[in-house]
Amino acid sequence: MVKIVGIGGSLRSNSSTYRALELAAQRVEAMGASVELLDLRTLKLPFCDGGDDYPGYPDVERLQETVKQADGLILATPEYHGGVSGVLKNALDLMSFEHLSDKVTGLISVLGGQSNSNALNDLRLIMRWVHAWVIPEQIAIGQVWKAFGPDGKLLDEKLSERFDGFAESLVVNTRKLRGSS
Amino acid sequence: MVKIVGIGGSLRSNSSTYRALELAAQRVEAMGASVELLDLRTLKLPFCDGGDDYPGYPDVERLQETVKQADGLILATPEYHGGVSGVLKNALDLMSFEHLSDKVTGLISVLGGQSNSNALNDLRLIMRWVHAWVIPEQIAIGQVWKAFGPDGKLLDEKLSERFDGFAESLVVNTRKLRGSS
Amino acid sequence: MVKIVGIGGSLRSNSSTYRALELAAQRVEAMGASVELLDLRTLKLPFCDGGDDYPGYPDVERLQETVKQADGLILATPEYHGGVSGVLKNALDLMSFEHLSDKVTGLISVLGGQSNSNALNDLRLIMRWVHAWVIPEQIAIGQVWKAFGPDGKLLDEKLSERFDGFAESLVVNTRKLRGSS
Amino acid sequence: MVKIVGIGGSLRSNSSTYRALELAAQRVEAMGASVELLDLRTLKLPFCDGGDDYPGYPDVERLQETVKQADGLILATPEYHGGVSGVLKNALDLMSFEHLSDKVTGLISVLGGQSNSNALNDLRLIMRWVHAWVIPEQIAIGQVWKAFGPDGKLLDEKLSERFDGFAESLVVNTRKLRGSS
Repeated sequence: MVKIVGIGGSLRSNSSTYRALELAAQRVEAMGASVELLDLRTLKLPFCDGGDDYPGYPDVERLQETVKQADGLILATPEYHGGVSGVLKNALDLMSFEHLSDKVTGLISVLGGQSNSNALNDLRLIMRWVHAWVIPEQIAIGQVWKAFGPDGKLLDEKLSERFDGFAESLVVNTRKLRGSS
Repeated sequence: MVKIVGIGGSLRSNSSTYRALELAAQRVEAMGASVELLDLRTLKLPFCDGGDDYPGYPDVERLQETVKQADGLILATPEYHGGVSGVLKNALDLMSFEHLSDKVTGLISVLGGQSNSNALNDLRLIMRWVHAWVIPEQIAIGQVWKAFGPDGKLLDEKLSERFDGFAESLVVNTRKLRGSS
Repeated sequence: MVKIVGIGGSLRSNSSTYRALELAAQRVEAMGASVELLDLRTLKLPFCDGGDDYPGYPDVERLQETVKQADGLILATPEYHGGVSGVLKNALDLMSFEHLSDKVTGLISVLGGQSNSNALNDLRLIMRWVHAWVIPEQIAIGQVWKAFGPDGKLLDEKLSERFDGFAESLVVNTRKLRGSS
Repeated sequence: MVKIVGIGGSLRSNSSTYRALELAAQRVEAMGASVELLDLRTLKLPFCDGGDDYPGYPDVERLQETVKQADGLILATPEYHGGVSGVLKNALDLMSFEHLSDKVTGLISVLGGQSNSNALNDLRLIMRWVHAWVIPEQIAIGQVWKAFGPDGKLLDEKLSERFDGFAESLVVNTRKLRGSS
């Protein structure tokens, strides 16, 4: 069974990034894949110092091993200053080729203002650099403060369908590229 | 007098990023500007959670105020996974338009492998997003492990001249754009 | 007097890109600068073959010389496939450092769909590469088919103010950087 | 049988871009795929005006149909001014989703100066925009004037191996993603 790991790049307690990540996760599970979400708010990670050893931070290895065992990834980030959050980039910096290469990755960004694809572009080039695959389907949620209803569902039907297509592409193509079922 | 603040995006103890930053700082001072370097290895900064308050982290305000009072900036980053380091991006995430806008910025990246401008491109678009200026001159030091001699000087004369042009452009154009002398 | 040259990257007969370029030009003139627009629909330019000589195409030299004598530039492009139009990139390819370096440049893009800054990012990095300056203010007009009224004016007041700020920054900062008045 | 179409973005008569494209094509054929190269020096294409009809230019349809029937693409471009050549971007502008979507694409760039990935990044984001796949493996040939021997072979063994990996990934993953053999 295809295993997808999701990572959210926000530390906000009531985070729209996580809400978007969870919506994607539900749809991915509905497609028959297993999903595990890594919550950077509960993982205790250090800043990356370019080295390999982080004594006192067992969550570094937990992050690395969980990602290593995945077939695919969902990376969701708030767009901060027109780029990926430092929090998420730092989590990626703590991993290396052996953890990230060949993963099939779907990207989501969440913005307070108008939709944009800067953070998505960033992540696409970063994940390429570590020899991961990034699916063509991607999601940027602009003006996220009005995107969700009180029930946590997306108010915009088109955006909701975009999540469907995103999840389908991620699962179907991870199966194809990884040879898993 | 033009005031330039330098920030290095590495936490490595023996950091080539800081060596490059210091070389640029010396040349900027030789042009008659004042320079203050912020060392992220000694500043105690939290991960940005998207909010404004970081109780227990007075260095957040020190970072913000030091940058706010600058006319220009030098941002130096190791290129991690083809992008700006999470450490530096997080420091930028902790600041806002009021601290970063209108600053005249010079960019430096340091790479273990072949030279590339991915991290510089990232930083250029990020600084644009906060309405800062970025000078056209930029420096990427590839294969940094063989860039410096035992005396800490650059071995490649052309690269050294590139630092001269970088510092000159930064100081001269900060004067022009900021109306300082 | 500061001289600004505008180039529009569309060949469409009824082009919104040119309408946007003309709006910017009017505001730039109102700031006391002179403006000359180069219309790629009337210039007869070849595809760039990487060489310097284009016999039979005197407009290549006209393009080069007009740009060379400018202090600043406005580049306006339709966003095609998430990037600058091939038409505009080709016109830039026909020029070199001697024509483009040091120009102070403002960027505008025009999109049929949702606003995005992909083409603007492209142009920012391209103009940096030829050592031009790019002002932080930039304009992306999304859903351009509903942006203009029958009188050719912008319907969105905020967008119109954005043009004001764009033109002011371009003229004021070209003066500062070029030492012209 | 997987069908790969290669397009070279140079009009130079003795073009290194085409030499690189041909090397890739040979390796792709050796992997059991069929290859057809489209030579923009012999195709007669107009500048894209944003419309669909190009009377007098039957090669537009030839370009579109050849690409449409491909499973995968190789796009090779000289890096002009830190970006994709206008010639190649214009050829892409002449096509649409129906021709380009879902193709599995490999990217090559050729530079006179130091290696860089700006043009590759451009193409990656452009091809994503038209919902194509881009393989993680990519090739930038820096200082191309000294890359090839008199026999047309690559002098750098490592670079030659990079072409092997590139071709293998393109063919193997096109098979996986397209379900062809």
